[in-house]
Order: sequence, then structure tokens, then C-alpha cells
Amino acid sequence: METSTLNTPPATLSSDLLQKIDAYWRAANYLSVGQLYLRSNPLLKEPLKLQHIKSMLLGHWGTTPGQNFIYTHLNRVIKQYDLNVIYVSGPGHGGPAVVAGTYLEGTYSEVYPDISQDEDGLGKLFTQFSYPGGIPSHASPQTPGSIHEGGELGYSLSHSFGAVLDNPDLIVACVVGDGEAETGPLATAWHSNKFLNPITDGTVLPILHLNGYKISNPTILARITHQELEQLFRGYGWNPLFVEGDEPMAMHEAMAAALDDAIEQIRKIKTGDAHSRPRWPMIVLRSPKGWTGPKEVNGHKIEGNFRSHQVPLAVSASTPPEHLQMLENWLRSYHPEELFDENGKLSAGLAELAPKGERRMGANPHTNGGQLLTDLRMPDFRQYGVPVPFRGAGGEGDTFVCGRFLRDIIRQNQHQRNFRIFGPDETVSNRLDAVLEATNRQWNATVEPADEFLAGDGRVMEMLSEHQCEGWLEGYLLTGRHGLFNCYEAFIHIIDSMFNQHAKWLKACREIPWRRDIASLNILLTSTVWRQDHNGFTHQDPGFIDHVVNKKAEIVRVYLPPDANCLLSVTDHCLRSRHYVNVIVAGKHPAPQWLNMDEAVAHCTRGIGVWDWASNDRNSEPDVVMACSGDVPTLETLAAVTILREHLPELKIRVVNVVDLFKLEKNTEHTHGLNDHDFDTLFTTNKPVIFAFHGYPWLVHRLTYNRVNNSNIHVRGYKEEGTITTSFDMTVLNEMDRFHLVMDVIDRLPQTGSKGVYLKQQLMDKLTEHKQYICTNGKDMPEILNWKWSEETKTN
Amino acid sequence: METSTLNTPPATLSSDLLQKIDAYWRAANYLSVGQLYLRSNPLLKEPLKLQHIKSMLLGHWGTTPGQNFIYTHLNRVIKQYDLNVIYVSGPGHGGPAVVAGTYLEGTYSEVYPDISQDEDGLGKLFTQFSYPGGIPSHASPQTPGSIHEGGELGYSLSHSFGAVLDNPDLIVACVVGDGEAETGPLATAWHSNKFLNPITDGTVLPILHLNGYKISNPTILARITHQELEQLFRGYGWNPLFVEGDEPMAMHEAMAAALDDAIEQIRKIKTGDAHSRPRWPMIVLRSPKGWTGPKEVNGHKIEGNFRSHQVPLAVSASTPPEHLQMLENWLRSYHPEELFDENGKLSAGLAELAPKGERRMGANPHTNGGQLLTDLRMPDFRQYGVPVPFRGAGGEGDTFVCGRFLRDIIRQNQHQRNFRIFGPDETVSNRLDAVLEATNRQWNATVEPADEFLAGDGRVMEMLSEHQCEGWLEGYLLTGRHGLFNCYEAFIHIIDSMFNQHAKWLKACREIPWRRDIASLNILLTSTVWRQDHNGFTHQDPGFIDHVVNKKAEIVRVYLPPDANCLLSVTDHCLRSRHYVNVIVAGKHPAPQWLNMDEAVAHCTRGIGVWDWASNDRNSEPDVVMACSGDVPTLETLAAVTILREHLPELKIRVVNVVDLFKLEKNTEHTHGLNDHDFDTLFTTNKPVIFAFHGYPWLVHRLTYNRVNNSNIHVRGYKEEGTITTSFDMTVLNEMDRFHLVMDVIDRLPQTGSKGVYLKQQLMDKLTEHKQYICTNGKDMPEILNWKWSEETKTN
Repeated sequence: METSTLNTPPATLSSDLLQKIDAYWRAANYLSVGQLYLRSNPLLKEPLKLQHIKSMLLGHWGTTPGQNFIYTHLNRVIKQYDLNVIYVSGPGHGGPAVVAGTYLEGTYSEVYPDISQDEDGLGKLFTQFSYPGGIPSHASPQTPGSIHEGGELGYSLSHSFGAVLDNPDLIVACVVGDGEAETGPLATAWHSNKFLNPITDGTVLPILHLNGYKISNPTILARITHQELEQLFRGYGWNPLFVEGDEPMAMHEAMAAALDDAIEQIRKIKTGDAHSRPRWPMIVLRSPKGWTGPKEVNGHKIEGNFRSHQVPLAVSASTPPEHLQMLENWLRSYHPEELFDENGKLSAGLAELAPKGERRMGANPHTNGGQLLTDLRMPDFRQYGVPVPFRGAGGEGDTFVCGRFLRDIIRQNQHQRNFRIFGPDETVSNRLDAVLEATNRQWNATVEPADEFLAGDGRVMEMLSEHQCEGWLEGYLLTGRHGLFNCYEAFIHIIDSMFNQHAKWLKACREIPWRRDIASLNILLTSTVWRQDHNGFTHQDPGFIDHVVNKKAEIVRVYLPPDANCLLSVTDHCLRSRHYVNVIVAGKHPAPQWLNMDEAVAHCTRGIGVWDWASNDRNSEPDVVMACSGDVPTLETLAAVTILREHLPELKIRVVNVVDLFKLEKNTEHTHGLNDHDFDTLFTTNKPVIFAFHGYPWLVHRLTYNRVNNSNIHVRGYKEEGTITTSFDMTVLNEMDRFHLVMDVIDRLPQTGSKGVYLKQQLMDKLTEHKQYICTNGKDMPEILNWKWSEETKTN
Repeated sequence: METSTLNTPPATLSSDLLQKIDAYWRAANYLSVGQLYLRSNPLLKEPLKLQHIKSMLLGHWGTTPGQNFIYTHLNRVIKQYDLNVIYVSGPGHGGPAVVAGTYLEGTYSEVYPDISQDEDGLGKLFTQFSYPGGIPSHASPQTPGSIHEGGELGYSLSHSFGAVLDNPDLIVACVVGDGEAETGPLATAWHSNKFLNPITDGTVLPILHLNGYKISNPTILARITHQELEQLFRGYGWNPLFVEGDEPMAMHEAMAAALDDAIEQIRKIKTGDAHSRPRWPMIVLRSPKGWTGPKEVNGHKIEGNFRSHQVPLAVSASTPPEHLQMLENWLRSYHPEELFDENGKLSAGLAELAPKGERRMGANPHTNGGQLLTDLRMPDFRQYGVPVPFRGAGGEGDTFVCGRFLRDIIRQNQHQRNFRIFGPDETVSNRLDAVLEATNRQWNATVEPADEFLAGDGRVMEMLSEHQCEGWLEGYLLTGRHGLFNCYEAFIHIIDSMFNQHAKWLKACREIPWRRDIASLNILLTSTVWRQDHNGFTHQDPGFIDHVVNKKAEIVRVYLPPDANCLLSVTDHCLRSRHYVNVIVAGKHPAPQWLNMDEAVAHCTRGIGVWDWASNDRNSEPDVVMACSGDVPTLETLAAVTILREHLPELKIRVVNVVDLFKLEKNTEHTHGLNDHDFDTLFTTNKPVIFAFHGYPWLVHRLTYNRVNNSNIHVRGYKEEGTITTSFDMTVLNEMDRFHLVMDVIDRLPQTGSKGVYLKQQLMDKLTEHKQYICTNGKDMPEILNWKWSEETKTN
């Protein structure tokens, strides 16, 4: 059992250094309590009075002293071993700790000169915390050195692993709260060690902060036996080093010894045999929640109890007067007079404990990834274009085509090592298999002979956890690299909440001048709702884009390319873009192709447009607009147009295809939105619009509710009807098939008269026939399968 | 190390029983392959021809033989020990196994008489699988004995634990796939054993099915050392029993021994000392993926490889002719002629292996929970009503009031033991603490002196994992009980995808006559977007209701009670309802109260209505409709009305409050929807509607896009602006505050003339003043904090 416990204190620290480390920690704790409470009198130059106290006391104390302890000790080893370390605060609501740490090392004042290293700056530092017009209480984007806010718990380890990929010298010290450790995403993230390459990737040093309590409950990991806890982490493949106790001096010794031990183990692994999976070290820090805070308030235990979670001691005009004195005693227990000079500057003896320059965790460039971001080397996507000899020519599967483009992006950036593809064991299923011609799936656990495409070094990261894929990719992007997440459409909802947090992070960064834009988060959704032939209803949910559109317009983009050439154009655009979340929805099955490459580029550049070759309304107002967005809706719309033009040739039909979904929204709401004039030009102001949409139909209404022609827009889409059946039958079940679309037109155009009535009856008979056919034959009727765009329309 | 390995085979089974068990397993495997491939010739009475093969081969073979193996062995112990066992199939895409198991035991034919136990029935059983008009390929609601479809992976263990709560005699045999085991939710679900009460709850027997592969990758748990694997599960607190191998007869012996061992351990725990946390047994079954299937096809390894994941052998007119013979050989390798008589009935000697009646896992009533569902004993919610002496009287916090109602529901159902509250350590934070007067938080790990409300038996289940809370509750409901999930509003998105799957399950059940309705899934969202004073932007997302409304109208309900009495009425309604997902959004902070109990009941029963006491448009058309939904929007709307009535008294204002969100949708879309006449009567057909909404404003547009007055509806809501600030400032940042609402009215009513222009200027000055005030004082201006509805309007 390799542990560093208090029973065998190693003499790691000299007496002088021990005293200084403790003083530095006290300084951080003092600054933390100051942030929670004080609006003036920051150096306690006069006795504390109520007028010095904020009117609203908001923040989290419980985790903070432990994080200050860790930050202080990390500073020592960074300096001693000249390490490249960043700090990820899983319990990021302990924002005061990260703010205090970066302030003491000088980073904070460099980024925010107004928060200077003097009494005036201290006052502002305290006042701004958790205050209107000030800063959030978490390790938010406003906090230098942070790539992880920690507002929503569960993703610290995944972010950390993403950060160290292809950063061989980087160590991410990741503090995992024992509350956070109960979440699912965190519980599986420990397994990330089966993927890391010890030579080409960096190191994650998890520090499980076992402070024992959540908001009002104990934590599970604090209430199992020491033996179980150790077995758990050894079972996860780690080598846990234990630092346990509450007496500061002994704990400083133990922590220093554990960190020295960990750094030595890491060094051995990094310089050792790369061909076996290493057992990386981790630290389990068991320290009291709210350590060094009030022991007891109003008869309740505070330190070492859940009651220290937020502000542990209420101080206001309506609380008992002794509370003010308790707060003053608490603050003075850190002896600020020993720590800061009379101008409020950290004493020189202590300031030298912090690393210098970019070695400071708050100034490490990896934490402001845009600084390090290099453009991808991009092959010309046009060269991957597929020939489209005629409209509706058979395709190979749109994502399959895109796979070849991605393959060569991997090849061209093999040297830069700044592009990766992430997916939950679906990269092949999603038909991006071409990428495996250029690279492998990175994997560091056992390999057996019949395995395929597994290697210690590879650009594809696959684990059956959407949370991990998303978390790894976010960490990779936040530290200045590029990537793509490919996922079954239905199951991307698993990371809805992670998307929320990332989109909020991006939005907040936009408002912070020193934060540099990072590469976009690109999500390629396939295996879509319309083609779940063997998985059925559980695999049908196109609603992620509904979720996405609620976030800030300057952050989110949604694309629905109708064929392979359009997908290539869109993918190229997304991979070059910055600071967005791009969602691309595309098909993987062989499907008809519509546009040659030049047309596709022109169409995707506009994002929306009339398909003249499918329309017959030239130089006039149409009788009806047939709009479509998504591959299957486009197919059904064009098939419907064929029927209409054959049977009702006098109708003037305009076909509009939408690639960039936000074109539908007003330009006042989204920068991609059409202005009213352009929208009305496309969709008319008074003609029926039959819109076949890839997703839930209401999304189109939500985007177009304030357009002039809104009341004439009739949308067909997925309305939660589905099971195991043919692809075409899926459209029938949801009334988005060609026959229903034609009937929708007839219903809205009385001028189709008896011809329309007769056609409608024929189509209803056809639907009955179809249903019987598939139940007998288990597949679609040949006339459905073999349908082709009928006109002589060569693609230029 | 307690393991049952092949090195020491115990003689558990007599030779006769061993042969029979193997034959029964072969029968299940034969039925499984038949489901994947055959449309006729089900007993292979003639040589296999292409015309006997389905035209589309869809399904998953890889997991199926292992699940057949488990099901067969469970049958033996159920019979031998007279156990009450249900089967949860984590890899539920191995639907053929559950269908085969329930068919062989007779359940399937009882539920679906057309699928009879004869040649004709066999033919239909085979044809229907994964076929248009047939059944899905998963352990779907159509499958008797299933409470878990397994389409989306990760929730099998949580469902299983939910199922055994308060079912002391029940054993849930939960097959966990090693792919599923990589998901976050599953990785943390192993910790559920820290909550189970060994006396009052039942037993979960996890069977980790280590078949080694996912779709195209190996699994992590199959590629770590045996020592690590054992440490991991011992660290999770389990006692793993290993069954490993591929030789059927030895594996039967090993599995039988392991199950006997597990049952004996369970018996000891159930009859032992309830005061210490037991170490429950689990089984690790390491068997080849696609066991007994083709060894090799086209030079590729199939059995024991990822290539057996789906249909391992393609057979059609376009595949090599020898494939047909390989399939026939494969089918005949099970010796169907020994298993079924010439009429296709399972031989009597084998049929007797299955349990009888409700002991059959497919017929266990717990798997059709509605059969067991008992109404809750409900106290009269009216008695918890708060007095509202005047409009806007101060409240205690709406959820705080509701907590007392929930407390007494717990008390009244203490004996029935069929109601539980679930939450991620937020029940107190969400101010439902009154429930802890009646019960405790169930917890079976270590307890320390300063802990509060922890006990081995309690009605509140708290773990910091929204996935676990949701999964436990779903399992509890699916087995015929009642419950409530309370959650921070923003973080309910963590279970978006679980909600999807549950809503789909409920929808599918509605179409299956033998499935009985279960209690509704009730989700109480609080700690809402508008009141995140100390958590800020990361904790602000009201979009779960946007997500919910995409699901089938017959399943989903959304309520936004504006005050405590309304919340009581809504909660009562939801807890009595069946087969819905009810989402209730309510405030927890002290806030103004508007309706006395009689008014609240009347208002909530209608779901939407004019608040006459706040309106001044009696007997006439209003000039403007001020609509509101949610507690904070209601407050701001009424404050705006006060300003309007003071400064522009000639305006006729109608106030409409919306509790039941679906009232806004058309009655043709949702059964709760208003018809056009009623909607137009409330909202007029041509007057401006200023709508203050709790959530993202576009949701109101999505629901009302096809109303006559649509273009006059102007919605204010959360538009993704927020940080740490005061509650009122949050409304200002999103322009939903009283001042902006008044300005919205003025902008839309030119008749307000110069008075309007002047008022608008005053309000803009007020907003500037407010911003300065809060930045200086850290709290809202007194006139905001102390605002009261001004009229002399006693509540009857």
C-alpha cells in the first residue's frame, strides 16, 4: 500500500519553508473570507463594524480552504521541479480560492489592473465577489487560469483529460470534489486513464478532495471504509496517495510528501516504457469541510460539517452582535498583519513562493486556449466532391463521403497534433471509417489479435460515454485545439446540459477582452430519426437542435446539408470557424445527391435558396412553396414535386431548400437570419408554404412566427411516431412522405379542383397499398425505392 | 477472494438437469436466431432456402446467447428456491433473448395468443421481430416482463434499484452490458448499494455481462486485469463472483454454482443484522460475444469478436451461396428436433424447467406496475393553504408551503410504503425540509454524530446524481408506486435523455392493451432561473419545458403555479394523475401571494384565466392584455399594471395568468389546449398582448403561432442574460422587469401619447438609478423590495 499518511511524516519541507507555506495558505484563506464578507476595511486596520460587511453574503466557503491548500502546495512543486501545471477546480463554486490564488501570484492584477496588489485593490477584490456588477462566485471565465467553471458538477476530469491530450509536458492538477464524484460523468471519467498515451500526452493528477459533505448530506466516498476507497481507485487503475488529517503543519508535511511522490511517479512513467499502461498516481486529500473556519455557530458544528458549505456565519444587523466579533476573530486568526504589508501588498518573503511568469497557474497559456490556437491545415474540400451526373444520382452515404475529407485533415495535421475526432464507439457505425485509413483509435488497455484500429497513439477517441466524448473535446478545445464529436442524433441529448454550460462559457468569454476565441465545438449528428430501421423508437429524437437554438445567437449554428457535397462545404466552414457550437445533421445511408460541388458551395454559402431546377415558377409568383430542410425531407419534397408536376402541371411550384437553419429567423434575432424582404421574396407573403423539416415541426414555427406569411406555413416533421419499420414508412407515420405533402398542397389550393380531389384519393389508396406491401415484404415498394427525379436536369 | 471459477467446478447440477438446462438454452438460442433470420420454415422441416429468409436482416445477436444463458439459469433458481425475480436487460437490444425466454415459459403466448406455442406461432414469432408491423428489436414495452427497454444505455442498475425499494421479497436480476458499464450513469449506479435497506427493500443482483465488445471496439472492463476488475467492484462495495469461459457444460456448472452462492449470500443478508451495510453479491459473467454463433465468416472472426454485434452472417440473394448453408448449419447446431415436437411445441421435459404462473419472469406483476398500483392516501391539500389577507401578501416560499403537504402524504402512506421523494442533495435547499419532520433520508453507509436526517429507512432518496434520482424514481414508478423528483431547474437538463426514453415508454404503453397505466413521473423544478442570486449564469436555464413539449401531447403536462396555494392545488392534481410526465415549476423564496385557496383551486382547475381583481376592462374589450406565467413574471406583471393604472388610468388592462402551459396550444394539438374561441376571448383577436414568461420567450410563440392574434403577442422571458446579481436585476437584464413591461405597452399603444412618452423616460431613468443603486448597495432599491399591490383588494 503506497500511501503518505500522518503516521510516517517525511521531512520534505524545511522548517522555514513549512512556515512560509502555512503563511501563504493563511493569506489565501484570509482573502477568501474577505471576498465572502467585506466591502471595506480589507486589512482590518480598524475594528470590524457592520458597515464593513456586505449586505448580501453569497458564496461557498466549505471547499475553499482545501483548495487554497492544494493551490499553495502546487505552487511549491511547480517552482521546485519547474513544472507546467494548470489547475482545474471541480468544485468551482469555491471561486474565492482560485481568485485568491491568482491574486497572490500576481496574475489577477495583471489581467485586471484595477484590482491592484495594494489596499485599494484588496478592497475592490473583496467587494466585487458575488456582487452586482462584480464577478460570479465560481471559477468562471472571468477567473484567470480557469478552463472549467464548475457551476454544474461532473466534468472536471473529462475536461482535464481533454486538456492534456497532445500536450506531453502539461500536468493538469484536477481537484475532484467528493460531491461531484457521485455524478455519473465523473464516475466513469476515472477510466480515461485507459486512453492516455504516456509519451505523447500529458498527465492528469486527480486530487480527490474528500471533505466529507455536500449541501446537506455526507458524501458516499467519505463514508465507505478506507479499504473500499483504496480498492475502488486501484480498480479504476490509479495509484492513490492518501493525505488525511486536520492539523495544518502535519498536513503540510503530508501533502508535500505526497506531491513529491506523485511527481516522481509521473517522471518515471514519462521516461519509462510506453508500451504498457501505467498506473498513474492520484491524491486523496481528506480534510475538514470549512477547514480553519468557525468551529461552532449557534450550537451547530460548522467546521468539518455540511453547515460550512456556503456562508457559515451570518453577519448583519439582524444577527446576534457576537457574530461580528466571531467574524473578526476568524479573519484575524490568519494574522493578516504578518502576511501583508501596510499598503496591502503580500510580503516579499511569501510572494517568492509563487512561480513566475507563465508557470503561474493563473497565467498558463493553456488556460486561455485561443492564445495557442493554430489554424488547421485544410485540404480543399472540393476535391472530395462526388459527381452528380443527374439530379438524384445515387450516393454512397453523405457522412461516408465526408469521412475521406476528415481522413485527410487528420493526415495534414498529423504533425501539428491539434485535431481529434471523438465519438461513443460510433465512428465506424456513423460511416466515418475512412478516418481509420489515416489513424487509429487511441487505446492504452489490453489489445487482442482480432482487434482493429487500436493503438497507443491515434486521433480518434472512443468510449461508450457521450459525456466523456463531449468533456474530452471541450477540454481539448479550451486549451487551443480543434475537434469534432460524431454521435447518434437521439443520444446527443445525453450531453444537453454539458452543451448548455459550454455555450454559456463561450458567451461569457465574448464579453471578456483578454479571453481569446477558441475553435468551435463541432457536433456531427447522424444515424438520424428517419433512418433507425433496426433500432426504432428509442433511437428517434431530432430535438437537440430545439435545445441548441435557445442559447445565444452569437454562439450557436445549425446546418442541415441535403447531400454529400453540401456536407463537405458545411464541414469545411465549421472546422474553420471560431467560438461557435456548430451542429451538423447529416445522413449516413446511401441517398440521392442533388447538387454538384459548385452548386453546393453556392447554396451553402447562401444557406438557403430556391432550387430553380426543381421549380417551375420562373419569373412569376408561385402557387405554392415547397420548402425542405434535411436529407430525407428534401427527398420527399422532390418526390412530391414530381407527382405534382405530373398530375397538376398547371401549378407553379417553387422549391426552397434550407441548409442553415437560422436563415429562417429574423436578422434582428440572429446574425444569419434573413431580413423580412429576403424572406418574403423566397416564401412569398400570401402563398401556402409546405415545409418538410428534419426535426420536430414546431421548431420551424418558433423560428418563423413573426414572418408575414407565418400563418400559411404548414410544417411536416417528426411528431414522435415511429418504430422498427422502413425508412419510407417512417415518413408516412409522421405524414411527411411525398404523398402527404402532395395532399397538403391540394388541401391548400382549391383551384386544383376535381383533379386534385381525384389525385388525393389515388394517393390515399397508394398509402394503403404501401402499408400492405411492407407488412408482407418487409421492405418498401420498388417504386419508392427506385424513385428518381424525373426531369432531364443535368447538373450544368 | 470468493469466486466460482472453472478451476474448481462444484457439482451443483445433476447430469440430467445439466443436459436439460443446456437444451433449454439451445432452444432459446434457436428462437433467437430464428427471430433474426426466418420468415417461414420455422422448424427447419425442409432444407433452408432463400425464400425462408427475411428480406431485411435487423437485430443484435452478440449479447443474445449470453442473455439466454442467464435467463435459463435464473429460471432454475427461481424454481428451486421459489424466488420472486424479475429480469432487467441492460443490453436490451438483445430483445430476441427476452422474447425467447418469455415465449418458452409460456407468457408470450398468453399475452399475444396469436403467437401460439406451435409451428404457426413460431412462424409468426420469427416474422414479427424487427419487422414492419411487428415488434421492435429491444426489450421494449411490447415485451412481457420488461420494465427497461435498453435502447439508450446506462440506466439498468438505477431502474433495478428503484424497483426493489419497498419490495423486500423482490430480486431484480440486472444484466449490465460491459458497453453500458462505460456510461456515466451506470458507473455511478453501482453505489446504489449505500442506500438499500436489507430488510425493507429487496435485492438487486447485478450480472455484469463481460462479453468483451461494443459495436466495433473492445470494452474497457474486459481489458483490465482480473485483479483490477475485482478491486473495482469490491471498492464499489460488492462481492463479485466470477463465471468465466466458453465451454457450455462447464459454464452451466459454474453459473449454477455462482447463482446458488449468490442466493445463499442474499438469504444470509436478508435474515442477518440490518444495522451494518451488507456486501451484496454480484456475478461477473465473462462469455464470448455471439457465443455459439458462426466462428468465422469471410475470413473474419465472429464469435468472441465485435463482428457478432448485430446480424453476424449476411444471407440474401446477393451474398455467397454458402452463407445459406452456414445459417442452416448454425440453426441445426441447436438440434431443434430434440427441443420442439413436430407441432412446434417445446418438449414437455424442457417446459417443466420454467417457473409457473407469476413466478415466471415474463409474468411477474412487478413488470406491469399498473397492476399493483394503489392510490395514494391524500390529505386534503386545502388545509395547507396559506392565508392571503391582501393581494401580494408576503409568503414563506411556495415550495416551503408545499413541503408540509408532502410531509403529510409521507405520513399517511407510511404504512403503504408506496411514496418516495428523490433529489440530488437538494430537498432541503429546495425548501421541502418539512418532509424531514416525517421521515429521513435513507442511507446505509457510515453515519457520524453531526449528521442530520439520515437513517436506514426513509422516504427521501438523495445522491448527487440527477441520473440516479431519475432512474430510481422511474424504476419505482414502473413497478407500481408513486413519487416526486425535486431538482434545480437548470440541472434537470442532465436527465433530458432519460426523460425522452421514459416518455417514449409511456407513449408506447398507451398502445398496448395489456400494459396498465402507472403513476405519473412528477418533476418539481425550483431554484429557478430568476433566483440564482449566488450561483449565477451556470444555474440559469429554464429550457427543460421546451424539451418536454416535443413529446406526445397525451403524455406531457407543464404547470407554472404563481403562488403557494396554486402550487398545492397543482401538486395534488399531479400526484393523483396517471401515466403522464408532470413538470411543475415553482419558487422557493419568500414571494408575494395572490390567490386564496378557493380562488387557487378555481384558477388551477381552469389552468388559465383572467385575474379580474387586477384588471380594469370589465364588460369591454381591453386596450392591452398583460399575460404572465410563473411566479416572478406574475410579480413583475402586476407591478407593471400598478404603474400603468397610476400613470395611464384611462387604459383598459386585462391580466391573464397561465398555470397550465398547454392551455396556450390549440385543443387540436393538446387535450388541455383552449379552442380558438376561448383563446380569442381571453387574448382578443387584435389587441397587444404583453406576455411575461418564466422561460425562454420563444416557447410561447411556438405554442401560439397559429392563433389569430399571434402577431400581437409580445413575449418577455429569459434570453440567456444573467450573472450573480439581485433577483430584480435578473429581470432587468432580460427586459422582463415591470419597467420594461410598461414600456412595451407604451410602445404598442400610440394613444398613450405624450403621457406615455414622458412615463417611458421616467422609467428609463429609474432603470439607470436602479443599476447604480445595486452596484453601490449590493441589493435592490427599497421601492422594489417593498412593492405591494396597491389596490384595496381583499381576497373575498
